[in-house]
Amino acid sequence: MNDQQKQRFSEQIEFLLEMDKMKNIWRQTLVLHEDRQENDAEHAWHLAMLALVLHEYANEPVDLKTVLATVLIHDVVEIDAGDTYAYDAAGNATKAAREQKAADRLYGLLPEEQGKWLRQLWDDFEAQSTPEARFANALDRIQPLMLNYTKGGISWQKHGTKRTQVEGRMQPVYDGSQVLGDFAMDIIRRAAEEGILRNE
Amino acid sequence: MNDQQKQRFSEQIEFLLEMDKMKNIWRQTLVLHEDRQENDAEHAWHLAMLALVLHEYANEPVDLKTVLATVLIHDVVEIDAGDTYAYDAAGNATKAAREQKAADRLYGLLPEEQGKWLRQLWDDFEAQSTPEARFANALDRIQPLMLNYTKGGISWQKHGTKRTQVEGRMQPVYDGSQVLGDFAMDIIRRAAEEGILRNE
Repeated sequence: MNDQQKQRFSEQIEFLLEMDKMKNIWRQTLVLHEDRQENDAEHAWHLAMLALVLHEYANEPVDLKTVLATVLIHDVVEIDAGDTYAYDAAGNATKAAREQKAADRLYGLLPEEQGKWLRQLWDDFEAQSTPEARFANALDRIQPLMLNYTKGGISWQKHGTKRTQVEGRMQPVYDGSQVLGDFAMDIIRRAAEEGILRNE
Repeated sequence: MNDQQKQRFSEQIEFLLEMDKMKNIWRQTLVLHEDRQENDAEHAWHLAMLALVLHEYANEPVDLKTVLATVLIHDVVEIDAGDTYAYDAAGNATKAAREQKAADRLYGLLPEEQGKWLRQLWDDFEAQSTPEARFANALDRIQPLMLNYTKGGISWQKHGTKRTQVEGRMQPVYDGSQVLGDFAMDIIRRAAEEGILRNE
């Protein structure tokens, strides 16, 4: 390796070590088989597994590699900006600005063209501007719903979450996948009927 | 959806919920910024990030989608078979049989052609029969090395691991990537020099 190649390699390793912090960002969702919250690394892995198995249900044909890359990196900005609970209005008001600054720093650790590639995937995800971004967003919304429901709605009860809030949160799933949108609404209906989600 | 489609979808969701157990399989490697072990879901996510950033260093051209899918699923068998520490000789003697049985059950949860696809990726990974499998294996070996070294060699000291053992473990990295093989050997040399890995 010449000096330029060494510099490139060293930037890549620094970024990958920085990524370890994703294992310490705790979400509101609980994992199924332990009494603890899920972290961003686990969440991203689970979304990637959903992408592998469910991509046939995207409304438009999607490039699986792009969907995978998108879900793998979609929460990286939370290393600096933190996780904002989906139903936290105050936190969500300042979220965009905090996350843009985080994206500048974190993707800026990488060699330029790699940083641009992953930043573009994240920008597309935020803007919901591609079929892959819309499908990734659908997965990002149904995965915690699946876990919350399977876990008996503990997170919903803790936050006093209402059925209408969850329905609103799941509406964009339809932009990525009609099938997964119907799946989400069916879970919500059952959760309300079973009394584990406030029916209002 | 007709009944057949409903059955297919239901198998896919059952598999994806079963996958949550990956979040409870604890490896010997420690995460960098907390005092705890890493689990299989976090590990697989981190490997996928390595794949995104480092695939240019594969010895042969690799299909990134296949590398990503391989690293995402490569430890799924541990849901039934458990994690076996790399330097545990007794555990490794029975590992193959336990993992084959686990693969039958876990990939068998999926619709047939999807189960076959992911099982094939895992079989290729085990047999090291494709460029993607060899590169995925290189990543699987360097990621814990990177974390162990950055964390001051705590796992090595706990297990009394020797430099020659780690060198042996890292030798197959060269089959996937010359650059990453050299990187691994450089880390080992530095670890031995710094006294965090037994120099024997």
